[in-house]
Amino acid sequence: MSLLCVGSVALDTLEGPFGRHEDVLGGAASFFSTAASFFAPVSLVAVVGADFPEAHVEFLAGRGIDTRGLARAAGRTFRWGGRYSDDLARRETIFTELGVFEVFDPTLPDGYRDAPFVFLANIDPDLQRRVLEQARAPRFVAADTMNFWIGGKREALLKTLARVDLLVINDEEARQLAEDSSLLVAATRIRAMGPRSVVIKRGDAGAVLYAGEEIFAVPGYPLENAVDPTGAGDAFAGGLMGTVARAGSADAETLRRAVVYGSVMGSLAVEGLGLDRLIRLRASEIEERFARFRELVRFA
Amino acid sequence: MSLLCVGSVALDTLEGPFGRHEDVLGGAASFFSTAASFFAPVSLVAVVGADFPEAHVEFLAGRGIDTRGLARAAGRTFRWGGRYSDDLARRETIFTELGVFEVFDPTLPDGYRDAPFVFLANIDPDLQRRVLEQARAPRFVAADTMNFWIGGKREALLKTLARVDLLVINDEEARQLAEDSSLLVAATRIRAMGPRSVVIKRGDAGAVLYAGEEIFAVPGYPLENAVDPTGAGDAFAGGLMGTVARAGSADAETLRRAVVYGSVMGSLAVEGLGLDRLIRLRASEIEERFARFRELVRFA
Repeated sequence: MSLLCVGSVALDTLEGPFGRHEDVLGGAASFFSTAASFFAPVSLVAVVGADFPEAHVEFLAGRGIDTRGLARAAGRTFRWGGRYSDDLARRETIFTELGVFEVFDPTLPDGYRDAPFVFLANIDPDLQRRVLEQARAPRFVAADTMNFWIGGKREALLKTLARVDLLVINDEEARQLAEDSSLLVAATRIRAMGPRSVVIKRGDAGAVLYAGEEIFAVPGYPLENAVDPTGAGDAFAGGLMGTVARAGSADAETLRRAVVYGSVMGSLAVEGLGLDRLIRLRASEIEERFARFRELVRFA
Repeated sequence: MSLLCVGSVALDTLEGPFGRHEDVLGGAASFFSTAASFFAPVSLVAVVGADFPEAHVEFLAGRGIDTRGLARAAGRTFRWGGRYSDDLARRETIFTELGVFEVFDPTLPDGYRDAPFVFLANIDPDLQRRVLEQARAPRFVAADTMNFWIGGKREALLKTLARVDLLVINDEEARQLAEDSSLLVAATRIRAMGPRSVVIKRGDAGAVLYAGEEIFAVPGYPLENAVDPTGAGDAFAGGLMGTVARAGSADAETLRRAVVYGSVMGSLAVEGLGLDRLIRLRASEIEERFARFRELVRFA
């Protein structure tokens, strides 16, 4: 079943042990859509500027992603620059240029409004909600957010969260949102804000799903060749929601498997610069990594 | 089969959100032996001072632990003081008084020298090796160590490691020992120092076993009631080596299960002050927690 995603499409400048690379295709929605496209039909809602290379649009369309919702506006594409430490453990933002995102008012094209599954990637919570309001009757809505909105637009974020079924969020942001250092307490508090379920992403320590009375945990994948963590969390969400959309259900068993596929896509994304690894990914490699996760946690 | 353990028996002063408690039974060997005693017969090698309460010896003996190797020397018992942050995430050492450990020269009593399984808990690597030299033909030797010895007695530690089958070590110490920030690289380098297998303890992020070509990971247990992390790593090692001794084997499947039982005992230990939780632990609670770990990582 189809999966609607709204979020940023960006041109990233990345610095780290991998060198310096300018204007690389990035943004949460790019990573999410590309990852999810291996699992289900994706409809993308975002905006780019006049300077956005047509080749990137062709790449996304080539992945089967519906790009009718990718608006092109006068002005510059959203740009983000980040610098990683040599061990990739720390990242600092060098610059953020909102560009055309400053005036973005998303309008869903025909056919998008009936998407049963919706992912609100990390953008202004007011924009997330505007997309949600145009969806007719989504069956399952997931969202991500970041420290910038938790700190700066908390009220707007809480309004969005009230309408979300699953929040996918990293550990530091979960602690910030819930104002508690315990992830278990944080998950409980966040679930009182609206989402029935929460997935907390812990980087190389894996991910934890809190759903109903259940807790499900996946350890981090032991990566031999970590290149660039940019977008790993969005690829994780793409694998997760892609699995839900493919199954047509977000029941407890599907959510567990979805968190593993999320971990598969997140760990793969880290193996290349920007989207490189996902661009050259074969479907069989996803199943191989999934089998390795099964072996990683197996015990008798 | 029986399990020999050498390490510290101490009186701890603990400060944290749980208050302040003086002269609590502690030390790596106390936690290890108590945890392991639920799985296999344990022979303890350590030293205490004239001031050590007889009731603590009676407790250990009451757990079926062979305390003939627990020497009593003139002088004060080893004492350690630690202070935890309110969220238990950080710990500082307030004081360390070696006391009778300054002149400890372990001698194995009759019957200890044939123990097939040996655990060298965190003490001076020269002492670890002196115990090992008295063991006749141990089938499987595991060891722990800490930053103090990695930094201060590296050569002695490397001599000990050359005779160890499994190193059980926390993440920061693994990085320090291997001089690399990647845990995968660290595990590979440590295995080149002698141990065929390495278990890296990651606190609330779980534990990872590197053995042969296999990697096995257990996520951290979502604790609702974390009280005091003191000794959790030693209780982990006790559950791990207790499982190996009970099985009479350290084959790959046993090691996987042993890491889960280690995680069980470590997570239980955190639920009480010092040894409190392990003191009042029932064997059925161990199996319940093991079943919860199975449920925690289950997916179809």
